[in-house]
Amino acid sequence: MTGHHTTQHAQSHSPAASTTLSSTESISLLSLSLACIGILANTFQGDGEPLIASLALSGLAFAGTYALIRWLGPTFMRSGLKGVDMSKQTRRELPECMGAICAVVYLLVVIVFIPFPFYKDIVAATSGGGNRDVVLRVEEVQRGRFLHRFPHGKLASYLSAIISLQSIAILGIGDDLFDIRWRHKFFIPAFASIPLLVVYFVDFGVTSIVMPIPLQPYLGELFDLGPLYYAYMACVAIFSPNSINILAGINGIEVTQSIVVALLLAFNDCLYLLTPYPHPATDSHLFSLFLLLPFLGVSFALLWYNWYPARAFVGDTYCYFAGMVFATVAILGHFSKTLMLLLLPQAFNFVYSVPQLFGLVPCPRHRLPRFNKRTGLMEPSVTEWVPERQPKPAVAWMLRMLGRLGLLMVKVDGDGKFVETSNFTIINLWLVWRGPLREDRLAGEITAMQAVVGLFGLFVRHRLALLIFKEDNWGL
Amino acid sequence: MTGHHTTQHAQSHSPAASTTLSSTESISLLSLSLACIGILANTFQGDGEPLIASLALSGLAFAGTYALIRWLGPTFMRSGLKGVDMSKQTRRELPECMGAICAVVYLLVVIVFIPFPFYKDIVAATSGGGNRDVVLRVEEVQRGRFLHRFPHGKLASYLSAIISLQSIAILGIGDDLFDIRWRHKFFIPAFASIPLLVVYFVDFGVTSIVMPIPLQPYLGELFDLGPLYYAYMACVAIFSPNSINILAGINGIEVTQSIVVALLLAFNDCLYLLTPYPHPATDSHLFSLFLLLPFLGVSFALLWYNWYPARAFVGDTYCYFAGMVFATVAILGHFSKTLMLLLLPQAFNFVYSVPQLFGLVPCPRHRLPRFNKRTGLMEPSVTEWVPERQPKPAVAWMLRMLGRLGLLMVKVDGDGKFVETSNFTIINLWLVWRGPLREDRLAGEITAMQAVVGLFGLFVRHRLALLIFKEDNWGL
Repeated sequence: MTGHHTTQHAQSHSPAASTTLSSTESISLLSLSLACIGILANTFQGDGEPLIASLALSGLAFAGTYALIRWLGPTFMRSGLKGVDMSKQTRRELPECMGAICAVVYLLVVIVFIPFPFYKDIVAATSGGGNRDVVLRVEEVQRGRFLHRFPHGKLASYLSAIISLQSIAILGIGDDLFDIRWRHKFFIPAFASIPLLVVYFVDFGVTSIVMPIPLQPYLGELFDLGPLYYAYMACVAIFSPNSINILAGINGIEVTQSIVVALLLAFNDCLYLLTPYPHPATDSHLFSLFLLLPFLGVSFALLWYNWYPARAFVGDTYCYFAGMVFATVAILGHFSKTLMLLLLPQAFNFVYSVPQLFGLVPCPRHRLPRFNKRTGLMEPSVTEWVPERQPKPAVAWMLRMLGRLGLLMVKVDGDGKFVETSNFTIINLWLVWRGPLREDRLAGEITAMQAVVGLFGLFVRHRLALLIFKEDNWGL
Repeated sequence: MTGHHTTQHAQSHSPAASTTLSSTESISLLSLSLACIGILANTFQGDGEPLIASLALSGLAFAGTYALIRWLGPTFMRSGLKGVDMSKQTRRELPECMGAICAVVYLLVVIVFIPFPFYKDIVAATSGGGNRDVVLRVEEVQRGRFLHRFPHGKLASYLSAIISLQSIAILGIGDDLFDIRWRHKFFIPAFASIPLLVVYFVDFGVTSIVMPIPLQPYLGELFDLGPLYYAYMACVAIFSPNSINILAGINGIEVTQSIVVALLLAFNDCLYLLTPYPHPATDSHLFSLFLLLPFLGVSFALLWYNWYPARAFVGDTYCYFAGMVFATVAILGHFSKTLMLLLLPQAFNFVYSVPQLFGLVPCPRHRLPRFNKRTGLMEPSVTEWVPERQPKPAVAWMLRMLGRLGLLMVKVDGDGKFVETSNFTIINLWLVWRGPLREDRLAGEITAMQAVVGLFGLFVRHRLALLIFKEDNWGL
C-alpha cells in the first residue's frame, strides 16, 4: 500500500541505472567492512561482548545492503519489480521491492550472530562437549553467571523470531509480486506471527499480565489472560506491520518512521542496560537490541536510496518487515505496551483512515498527496463529491465536524453541498495544516513529529507508569 | 536448471487456465481436510501421537497445495512466472515456480505442528507453568519418559531446520525470479545451510564420526573431525539440492525422484520405530518423519499438476527445497551417509555431467532430450561437432572410450572426426540405452530405476554395514 507508484511487470529493458559503486563508495564500504570484521574476530576470540559483535555485524549489514541495492536494482527492474515515482517532474522508472534485499541481508546477519550470545554459555556448561541436555540448574541460570550472555533456553525464542521474520519476508515478497488485495494482505502479518505464537506457547507459556494498582483488589496482582493473551499478541503482530504500511506514499517516509521507532526502542533498551545489574528485564532488552541494531544497519542503507529524490522504492516487503521486527522484539521482550506508545502516529493514521478503509467515504486507489507540477510542491489529495452523489447524513455530519475541528479540508458549494474533502491520511492532514510543502520537507516534518511523540511516549511510560503500576518493570 | 522451458517475464494476459476446482475435487478435498482436522483435534485433546498428527497435517498440506496451485496459477503467470513446455506438439504457456506454493504450505504446516511433539513434555515438566528453565534431569530425558515425545532441547534443532528451509525457499524464489547464473546459484544451498550449521554448533556440537572396525586400532572408535565436520555437512547441504536440480528437464521427473527419495527415507525411519524401544536413534528418525511426511503431502499435490502432460512447472524453488529437506533430516538425524546412498543416481548424473559443466565438452543452454514432433517421442539431444572445431586429444579419447562402454552416443564421419555426441545427462543416457520413449514413459522408467537403486542402497546399508561397523546404528 505504498501508493506512490504503479508497479508494472513488463519485460522491457529500461534505461539501466548505474550498477557500479564509485571508487569513493567502494573504499568507504570496504574500510567499514574490514573494521567490522576485525572487531568481530576480536570479539569471538576473546571473552568479548555480544553487543559489540552485534554492532559490528550491523555495520556489515549496512555495507552489504548499500552495495547490493546498487548491484541488484536493474536485475529487479528486468524482472518487472519496478515502479514510477508519480511526484516528480519527469517520469522515471525505479526499482521496487528493495526491502527484500534488506530482509535477506538482515536475516543472514541475525543468523550468523547466533553463536555470539549463546556460545560461551554452552562451552561453560558442557566443557565444550556436545551434550546440551546437561543443563544448568535453575538458580544458576536465573542468577546469570555471564553478564550479557543468554541462558540456552533463550535460543528457541531467538530462533522463533527469525522464523517469523523470514515468514513475513516471504509473504511480503509475494505481496509485492502479486499485488494482493487489501482485504487479504491485512492478514499477512497474522500468518507470519504464527511461529512466534507457537514457540511462545511451547517454550514459555506465560499469559499473565501485571494489573494496575487500582484494579489489584479485584483481579489480583497478576491476571491470567489465558488464550486471550495469544489473541492480544496476534493483534500486536497484525497492527504494527500494517500501520507502517499505510503511513506511506512519499519518498523516504516508510524508512524514516521505521528508523525513528527502532532508535527509540533501542534507546529504551539501553535504559535497562544502564541499571545496576541484575535488572530482571535486562535480558529481554539485550535480546531486543540484538534484533534492532542490524535492522538499523539495513534501514540506513535503504534510506540512502529512498530519500528524496528516491532512486529506489522499498516495497510492501520493507514495511511489513519493519513492523514485524518491532512486534517480535516487543512480544518476546514483554514490552508491547511501550511499542504501542511509539506507534501513536501510526495508530492515529489508522483510526483516521477508517472512514475510507471501510468505505464510508469513497477511497481512491491512491491517497498519496497530489504533486503540483507547477510549484513542485505536495498538496493534499482530495476525494471529489458530485452533487448527485453526496455523503449520507451521518457521514456528512462527521465530515463537517472534522472540518470544523481542523482535521479535514472540506470544500462546499453555495448550496452547502460537498465539493471535495481531503483524503483521510495523516500525510494529507499535515499538508492541510502546514500548507504545500516540498516532498523532502514533508517527510522530514512527519519524521520529526514521530520522534517527538515517541520521546514523549517513553517519558510517560517511565515517569507516569509508576502511578498505576507498582514497579517500573516487572521483567520476565 | 529445469531446462525444459524458457521463463518469460511479460505483462501479457495469457489465456487463463481454469482457476476453479470441480465439484468432485472440492468435495474430495473438503472431506479429506475435515477428516484430517478431526484427527488433529482428537490428537491434541488426548494423549495422542505426534506421528498421527503429522499424518493428518500432511493430508491438509496435500489438500491446501492442490487447491492453491489451481487458484494461484494464473496469478503467477500474470506476474511473469510462466514458461513454455518445449516437448509438446502445441506451444502452451504454463505457470512456473509452483514449488514456491509447496514451500509456503509446507512451512506453515511444520510450524503449526510444533506443539504436538513438544507440548506434553513441557506440561509434564513444568505443570503447565511457563518456566521452561525447570528442565528434566539428563537421565530422565535420555530414558525418554514419553514414548515418541521429544525432550525440549530438540526444539532448537527443529526450529533451525525450519529456518534453513525458509532460507532455501527465499533464495529459490529469488533464483526463479532473477535467473541467477549457474556459477552463482550453485552456492545458494550453502547460504541456506548456515542456520543449520550455526545452530548445530551452538546447540549440539558433536563432530565425531564412528570409525569402521578396520581403522579403529589407528584412529580410535570415534574420530573427531572438528571443523571439517561442518565442511562435510555444508557439502551434503550443497550436493543434495543441486543434484536434484540438475536431474531435470522432463515433465514430472523433479517431483517423482524427490518422492522416491522421501519415501525411502521414511521407510528407513520406520525401521527404527519398529525396533524394541529405546533404540538410541529413534528420536532422530521420528524427527525425520515429522519433516518428511508433510513434504510428501505437498509433493503428491504438485505431481498431480506436473506429471505428463504438465499443467504447471515446479521451478528451481521446488528442487532446492526438496534437496534441502533431505539434507536437513540427514544432518540433524546423523544419517547423511544413508542419504548419499539414496541419491546415487543423482550423484552419477552429476559426475557424468562434469565434462559439460566444466567446459571440456561444449554445453548448450538446454540439455533436455529432444522432442521429435513427428513421432511424439523423446530422443537424446546432442552436441554437434564441426570438422574445424574438434575436441582436444584427451577429450576425444575420453569420448571414444565412453562410446565404446555404451555410456555415450558417438557419431563419427568417415575420417574418424566427431559429428555429434549425446549430451551428458542421465536422461539422455537412458534414451541412448532404451531408444526413443514417450515423455511419461521416460520419467516413469527413471523413477523406477531410482527406486530400485535406493532400495538396494538401503539393503546394503543395513546388511553389509555390520561388516565394517560394530553396530547397525550408533544413534546420537
